[in-house]
Amino acid sequence: MDVEQYMTELGRSARAASRRVAASSTAARNKALLATRDALDGARSRLAAANAEDLERGAVAGLAAPLMDRLELTPGRIDAMLEGLRQVASLPDPVGAISDMNTMPSGIQVGRMRVPLGVVGIIYESRPNVTVEAASLCLKSGNATILRGGSEALASNCAIAACLVEGLLAADLPATAVQVVNTADRAAVGHLITMPEYVDVIVPRGGKGLIERISAESRVPVIKHLDGVCHVYIDDGADADMAINIAVNAKTQRYGTCNTMETLLLAESTAEQLLPRLAQAYAAAAVELRGCARTRAILPQVNEATEQDWREEYLAPILAVRVLRGLDEAIDHINTYSSQHTDTIVTRDHARAMRFLREVDSSSVMVNASTRFADGFEYGLGAEIGISTDKLHARGPVGLEGLTSQKYVVFGEGQVRT
Amino acid sequence: MDVEQYMTELGRSARAASRRVAASSTAARNKALLATRDALDGARSRLAAANAEDLERGAVAGLAAPLMDRLELTPGRIDAMLEGLRQVASLPDPVGAISDMNTMPSGIQVGRMRVPLGVVGIIYESRPNVTVEAASLCLKSGNATILRGGSEALASNCAIAACLVEGLLAADLPATAVQVVNTADRAAVGHLITMPEYVDVIVPRGGKGLIERISAESRVPVIKHLDGVCHVYIDDGADADMAINIAVNAKTQRYGTCNTMETLLLAESTAEQLLPRLAQAYAAAAVELRGCARTRAILPQVNEATEQDWREEYLAPILAVRVLRGLDEAIDHINTYSSQHTDTIVTRDHARAMRFLREVDSSSVMVNASTRFADGFEYGLGAEIGISTDKLHARGPVGLEGLTSQKYVVFGEGQVRT
Repeated sequence: MDVEQYMTELGRSARAASRRVAASSTAARNKALLATRDALDGARSRLAAANAEDLERGAVAGLAAPLMDRLELTPGRIDAMLEGLRQVASLPDPVGAISDMNTMPSGIQVGRMRVPLGVVGIIYESRPNVTVEAASLCLKSGNATILRGGSEALASNCAIAACLVEGLLAADLPATAVQVVNTADRAAVGHLITMPEYVDVIVPRGGKGLIERISAESRVPVIKHLDGVCHVYIDDGADADMAINIAVNAKTQRYGTCNTMETLLLAESTAEQLLPRLAQAYAAAAVELRGCARTRAILPQVNEATEQDWREEYLAPILAVRVLRGLDEAIDHINTYSSQHTDTIVTRDHARAMRFLREVDSSSVMVNASTRFADGFEYGLGAEIGISTDKLHARGPVGLEGLTSQKYVVFGEGQVRT
Repeated sequence: MDVEQYMTELGRSARAASRRVAASSTAARNKALLATRDALDGARSRLAAANAEDLERGAVAGLAAPLMDRLELTPGRIDAMLEGLRQVASLPDPVGAISDMNTMPSGIQVGRMRVPLGVVGIIYESRPNVTVEAASLCLKSGNATILRGGSEALASNCAIAACLVEGLLAADLPATAVQVVNTADRAAVGHLITMPEYVDVIVPRGGKGLIERISAESRVPVIKHLDGVCHVYIDDGADADMAINIAVNAKTQRYGTCNTMETLLLAESTAEQLLPRLAQAYAAAAVELRGCARTRAILPQVNEATEQDWREEYLAPILAVRVLRGLDEAIDHINTYSSQHTDTIVTRDHARAMRFLREVDSSSVMVNASTRFADGFEYGLGAEIGISTDKLHARGPVGLEGLTSQKYVVFGEGQVRT
């Protein structure tokens, strides 16, 4: 079949299914999630066989080791998928809540009702567990989903999709509420992101290149997470132990995550005292430092940071370090170089803490806490479909609420406009 | 100067100004609004001269009468601009409010702070009063603005912009917080909508053609209002007088507005009784009816509605009429043909009212009230920058809140991730 026609049919089915899912009860959606859990649990051998097929194809194609690792569905990862489904089923249903109801001078009552977005398109790379994670969050929030995973995971994703369909049918929900794009044809993505009549939002998950390409070409709004160039700023008079503790945790707790610190900023009054202690701690973790001239005046062994280092998301044991006059310069640096993801100030000063919060234009701004806390679980969202570095609709970790919107509801008693 | 370079400079200045406006006090922004008001009041003769220039050019170019009308800055329209500025200054400031603050198991406190979007690009057609309306709402909500009005209104818009700059400077805010694109070169729009590094959101105001073109080409998120194909559905057992009153008001109170009803739906049980009375009322207002077969069985003089009529935004004294079995078919019809703007049910039945509210996928859904209520003033927003038919970010009338977003704020006491 022609891929355009195939995608149009997926879109049309998703749109129709989305209306039924939006009108379904919380109980039905939870039932589908738990039935999917049971179906996956019962399909372990089929999942393993499908995954082995993908892994074999990957090995033949010479996939890089990290990709092969992400592709693998270990028993532990299947357990985590089952637990994820249980957790999402236990989250409160965001759909239907009416808020901000007020009576207007005309006598009408105006409020807002939380409603699903409709059809969510998810585009992701190798990890097959994303199929369940993303589909479950979308279903819980009353949306239909079209999932386009990496072609290297196609057999695994189709096996998982069969379990999702089993779960949907067990709850008397339409089987097309979750659809996996069942072709490796790359043109499928191009169609998915240019069908605004069938798809309400695209959530791409993957490398920066993929996301930039999708954002540039999409005719559908994109909830995107580009990169995380996160900062810790150690303010004049900060508690030294707290500052070191946070700066070390934000860099070294994990290197490959988007909320990992990539540049450390210090007020000049703190540099002399803190930089040697920090250098020791980072050396112990084998983190390479790249410093500005003032950093290197205190730590001569450190390499010079170039302009490019201030923009770099290393995702590796490398850290850029800059000494600045104080808060104003720190805010300037962050608003110039940060990717507007997550930035922290370590300070004792209330007024400067509040200025940092107000003036740093990032999706998460923190006082005296590690940047590593920026995620949906730590923020109490229960789960996240991604972290948005956009400003519209959703900023920061996106949970169930980010997969909904609000419409106006008006209750009248026959009022007309005069 | 090269138009690309000119737009890049506007963008860069707007971005820099947006940081200062975002950090400014409510008092400073209100002072700028009121000083603009005084400046416009003092510049009436200059405004009249600039407007006369535009009108003369328009007459020579043979502008159509409605365009000429919209272009004119009458003393009454200037009064309305002054009153608008006073009203916007008196609205509560949305910026800075922290909400939903909760303490997490890790001990960090997580909440959300309302912040400006940054730089808003407004693209509009002839009416010069939009310059003040849009700029004042953006400024109040802490944003910088780049305004691209119709080339036919360029002299008027520049005269108004001078007053806005006077207002900004009086409040010690950057003069570039509001900038009018000072060239008739059409390429300016193309640049404005493809500078995501400088512009955070585009709000187009104008005809459907303009908005579709901008949405298709924009690299920046668009808050758009496409069209208003609005419905009134008269349910089985509805109060006859209320139904007629609402159906007549929704169609005839104004024809050219987006919240005017374009299609009337009736449950078959109501048709026999109501259609003759409705036909009489519409005939009195010279509204042409176009009906389905069942409508024409009761009103044989009515013309036949075609498939195209169900999709038509007439903006004229024409109304499509369809008789349906009941609520299910009405919801189906609306979700198929409506532009997801505003739809109303007239009913006495609570369960059906709630189903209509939940299942009709439109930005405003109403019970027993005229569709004409769908606007920012009637909803208590104070003012509106437009009515969004999108689902993401803002749906329905967009006021100050729609020009802001929320970022996460985290208060810690030195917590690190384990």
